[in-house]
Amino acid sequence: MTIALDMMGGDFAPLEPVKGILRYLAETPEPMQVAMLGHEDAVLPLLEQHNIDAARATMIHCAQVVGYHDHPVKALKEKQQSSIAVGFGMLAQGKVDAFISAGNTGAMLVGSMFSLKPMEQVLRPTIATIIPREDNRLGLLLDVGINSDCKPENLNQFATMGTAYAREILGIGNPTVGLLNIGEEEGKGNLLAQAAYPLLKANASINFLGNIEGRDVLDQSADVVVCDGFTGNIILKLLESVYTITHRQGIHHPYFNRFHFEQYGGTPILGIEKPVIIGHGVSGAEAFGNMLGLAQKMLATDFIGKMKGAL
Amino acid sequence: MTIALDMMGGDFAPLEPVKGILRYLAETPEPMQVAMLGHEDAVLPLLEQHNIDAARATMIHCAQVVGYHDHPVKALKEKQQSSIAVGFGMLAQGKVDAFISAGNTGAMLVGSMFSLKPMEQVLRPTIATIIPREDNRLGLLLDVGINSDCKPENLNQFATMGTAYAREILGIGNPTVGLLNIGEEEGKGNLLAQAAYPLLKANASINFLGNIEGRDVLDQSADVVVCDGFTGNIILKLLESVYTITHRQGIHHPYFNRFHFEQYGGTPILGIEKPVIIGHGVSGAEAFGNMLGLAQKMLATDFIGKMKGAL
Repeated sequence: MTIALDMMGGDFAPLEPVKGILRYLAETPEPMQVAMLGHEDAVLPLLEQHNIDAARATMIHCAQVVGYHDHPVKALKEKQQSSIAVGFGMLAQGKVDAFISAGNTGAMLVGSMFSLKPMEQVLRPTIATIIPREDNRLGLLLDVGINSDCKPENLNQFATMGTAYAREILGIGNPTVGLLNIGEEEGKGNLLAQAAYPLLKANASINFLGNIEGRDVLDQSADVVVCDGFTGNIILKLLESVYTITHRQGIHHPYFNRFHFEQYGGTPILGIEKPVIIGHGVSGAEAFGNMLGLAQKMLATDFIGKMKGAL
Repeated sequence: MTIALDMMGGDFAPLEPVKGILRYLAETPEPMQVAMLGHEDAVLPLLEQHNIDAARATMIHCAQVVGYHDHPVKALKEKQQSSIAVGFGMLAQGKVDAFISAGNTGAMLVGSMFSLKPMEQVLRPTIATIIPREDNRLGLLLDVGINSDCKPENLNQFATMGTAYAREILGIGNPTVGLLNIGEEEGKGNLLAQAAYPLLKANASINFLGNIEGRDVLDQSADVVVCDGFTGNIILKLLESVYTITHRQGIHHPYFNRFHFEQYGGTPILGIEKPVIIGHGVSGAEAFGNMLGLAQKMLATDFIGKMKGAL
């Protein structure tokens, strides 16, 4: 199996992707093959400098780069030699098995939807974020931004996909699911939450706890929390800012350090036919190493197959 | 002018309301008259014990109490001798000029809507929360829970009402307004935010900055942040939980201590014909004292008149 890594994506590319590969190869007992997609002039000198094992990581030259401010659809159309376009092309053709990039998020989403496809049963693919919980466990919140307006059946499917991810990748047995809401009892909330509740309750493939409120997100209340992408994105960015503020205020505490989301690597797009992982723009070596590890785990456990089974 | 205070509302009633009155009378240069609504048997001994000046605070006996778990509409109908029902009755008849309670929030909302009335121009009254900002100033976030599903014109009116409150009560000159959204540029976001943006942009009575993201809520970005009540309530409770967690983890830091929302007293219902302030269930003497001060400020500055002017 081969994992493709965009060497040009992220604020610190290509140096941090190179260092990430180094970490991955050194720390993983049986690493998979890595395909490095990027411009040779930028990447090759770094490979030599960091003694990257050419047998384990292969360079694939891409003459173009998608910038952060490029329009996603236009960029993929007009920059077919870019690392992101090449990555999706190779993934669609089965030349690589997973694709990771910390580059233009919009282009990554567009590529996932159009170069690849949503799984047959999936109404809307989704992205999730890890939520650090006070008891040291990890929770999952989704959607966090692709689907800003949702229908009740979307939330129900996020619950199923989030449950599969929590079980297979986070290693949580029988994960509990909560519906993010502004009241505890069934019938509370906005129209979306009111309509989603009975669907979640009737969903036999999840362990539905009921509504959870804003105060419960960081608590032990549920392993998987579902909401529309507007609310989820606001929460994600608010929590990121809490980390930034603690940091700026000189508060160094193990719990709040866990709000430093980059350490978790990236977020996979759930509900598409192949493993695709989107990294944070500020990803460093640790994040790139973790994303390679995550891609390997998704491939080794046949996560896509298990997700299809769950759906 | 007379401020009515529900002596039976809140987890620590009637002792903390009594101590709150004591603080208010002692710390305010020219305090207004206080009408104490509650059961004589519970309140009178405390008044004596704390030497409350009977010339400044008058007892009004109310034989019933609305409990936390009472159904709001039913409670107001069936418990007409309760302190909340009596308070709204007196306020509607002009026997008192403002009403404060830390009791059943639902009953306070129902009373505000039906015993009083929304201002003529107001589509939906709203409640706001104070947001502690890192630069020590205060921001305002609204709606935080009454209006879980909103129309674009509701958000636009929240902006006008929030601006009036920020200017007259928080003392912020020419307050800036941000639309909570999941992207910076116009056209981003869910359908509601997309449709609200041009209305806010065209609103001549506010100082509209544009979209602000989740990461900007705690930042210096905008004095007044508008969103639907679902999102606002999630944010409010999430931030309350951040305070709880810092406290539990033994982090005592001036910035995070400001997330202890009870210290701000209560939240007025904006857009109704009279000053009504809802307190937090766990309100203590400080909160009750602050709520009395807030009611006085709203009356002394003719806040209701100014709000009507702004609308």
